Amino acid sequence: MIRIGIYGYGNLGKGVELAAAQNSDFSLVGVFTRRNPEKVQTLTGAPVYRAERVTEFADEIDVLVICGGSATDLPEMTPALAQTFNVVDSFDHHAKIPEHFLRVNEAAMAGGCTALISGGWDPGLFSLARLYGEAVLPDGVSDTFWGRGVSQGHSDAIRRIPGVIDARQYTVPVASALESAREGEKRAFSAREKHTRECFVVPAEGADLAQIEREIKEMPDYFKEYDTTVSFITLEELREKHSGLPHGGTVIRTGETGGRIKELGGATERTDRPRTNRERIEFSLKLESNPEFTGSVLVALARAVYKMSARGDFGCKTVFDVAPADLSPKSREELLKALL
Amino acid sequence: MIRIGIYGYGNLGKGVELAAAQNSDFSLVGVFTRRNPEKVQTLTGAPVYRAERVTEFADEIDVLVICGGSATDLPEMTPALAQTFNVVDSFDHHAKIPEHFLRVNEAAMAGGCTALISGGWDPGLFSLARLYGEAVLPDGVSDTFWGRGVSQGHSDAIRRIPGVIDARQYTVPVASALESAREGEKRAFSAREKHTRECFVVPAEGADLAQIEREIKEMPDYFKEYDTTVSFITLEELREKHSGLPHGGTVIRTGETGGRIKELGGATERTDRPRTNRERIEFSLKLESNPEFTGSVLVALARAVYKMSARGDFGCKTVFDVAPADLSPKSREELLKALL
Repeated sequence: MIRIGIYGYGNLGKGVELAAAQNSDFSLVGVFTRRNPEKVQTLTGAPVYRAERVTEFADEIDVLVICGGSATDLPEMTPALAQTFNVVDSFDHHAKIPEHFLRVNEAAMAGGCTALISGGWDPGLFSLARLYGEAVLPDGVSDTFWGRGVSQGHSDAIRRIPGVIDARQYTVPVASALESAREGEKRAFSAREKHTRECFVVPAEGADLAQIEREIKEMPDYFKEYDTTVSFITLEELREKHSGLPHGGTVIRTGETGGRIKELGGATERTDRPRTNRERIEFSLKLESNPEFTGSVLVALARAVYKMSARGDFGCKTVFDVAPADLSPKSREELLKALL
Repeated sequence: MIRIGIYGYGNLGKGVELAAAQNSDFSLVGVFTRRNPEKVQTLTGAPVYRAERVTEFADEIDVLVICGGSATDLPEMTPALAQTFNVVDSFDHHAKIPEHFLRVNEAAMAGGCTALISGGWDPGLFSLARLYGEAVLPDGVSDTFWGRGVSQGHSDAIRRIPGVIDARQYTVPVASALESAREGEKRAFSAREKHTRECFVVPAEGADLAQIEREIKEMPDYFKEYDTTVSFITLEELREKHSGLPHGGTVIRTGETGGRIKELGGATERTDRPRTNRERIEFSLKLESNPEFTGSVLVALARAVYKMSARGDFGCKTVFDVAPADLSPKSREELLKALL
């Protein structure tokens, strides 16, 4: 049994809780929250503790899954907790990953712990697809498309506009760009060419709709660089049609093999010269629940962290360091027979 | 520089040769063949040696890629060579993998070598897709579809029929089954439901076409269990339209997350009970050249074998044991920045 704890109990923490319950080799020691534990009811009846008490459980928890936000929570939490616990986080601020890695590595090495950062699906499974694609087809081009799915960050950005009660933003891949990428068209897409943004907004009574729409569409980084549509709906419609958190996406690698004989010694005259062939690798996800799926990935990674730690493989890790066998509860013999 | 040798020089050996030339961290020491080396001309001008001479190159080759057949070559070659060389093979006789693993492991451990067996795309990348899918979505179902692509084994089987000069067999996935699998329909497909077989046959002059067609369609294991179509064509048409070796396929994992609260403590009354959500993971390949792509995978695996061997990680390995980072020529820092 792998005994895990969940540190932070929002959507992702709940996803981890439910995923752990689906894996018979896991037991959930408890949920740790900064809120008042008496006011938090877990989905599975798992006990709830104050976040400060987590170190009391150092001997009872094999892996702590940290479910905080990447903006301010994880940069503090993960290095602090990795001194005492084997941990998994889902840090997804791409540009700051190298810095986070170094800080977590220092803490984990000092504590003799194994810490996996940036787990989930992007970063995570999509990162793996990008790595496998590039390693196998070095002469090629990679593209990642996201959606159709709800972007929490973009939804939050809309909610901060005065006169907005609630909002949901869908990121939508542009079909023609997806097709171009599949055909191996070697070009860099602009942000606008790859994705559109669909916003469903609940306005306050009497709000200036034209003004809200303008503010959304002109918001730099979030919407200005995209073709954005804004639909105003009622709170009832939002709850009815947009209560889920679906997401997904596609990583495409196209590349060429063969050919190139000319560069390899002037053998262009040979009749057996192979032509260049085009190969395509595609990895895609279609998720009804982004947080539940992400939680499922984190639980599989927690299993790998548990095994790596047991082998004395300490320090900071990413999905790139995880031997796939470590993600599975199956033995080597079972894996060879059933999955290879 | 990773110095590799190629043992066996058919379509796959040529694919490895061309792939090595695409990777600047590889150099090709030579090709080893059981044919007369003077009659073998390599695509890149790499030197050719008699197979028996391979052990003379023990100090010059970091990884030997063994490109023999799974039926009779690899069961002998890989254990024999793994005593002296780090090796990679593409053994694909699924039922015999556990036995092959044990024999190769014994040899590699005795010789202090690292041996990766069953590399390529199936077994290989598809095995990885199956493992990742199952580890992340334990409550789910996996399906693998192959094609549209040329099956060498089935083409060979047709060629052995009297009156057949040449033949090409395409394995074709059934679109409706693929769609059912994508929708997460939990059922076991029969062989006939998943794939059809298209045969293009060049008959000898005056051959009994009806008899050839009957023999193909009734061949057990190969064709009898499938809906098979047979088209008779000329040798010119075969050469013109069917000279390539395209292949590909799709691994689909669908699974459910969330829900199941009832089983977790009778909490069915709770209003916050999450519904069950369906998630889908799909990995697909579309290849113009099966042997060139397979060769590309073997070269990436040879890089991993080289690194594992350098760390003293000896014995028999499969793709399940390879940390993804070992497949890439990039440093950890580069991987974190560019791909995570």
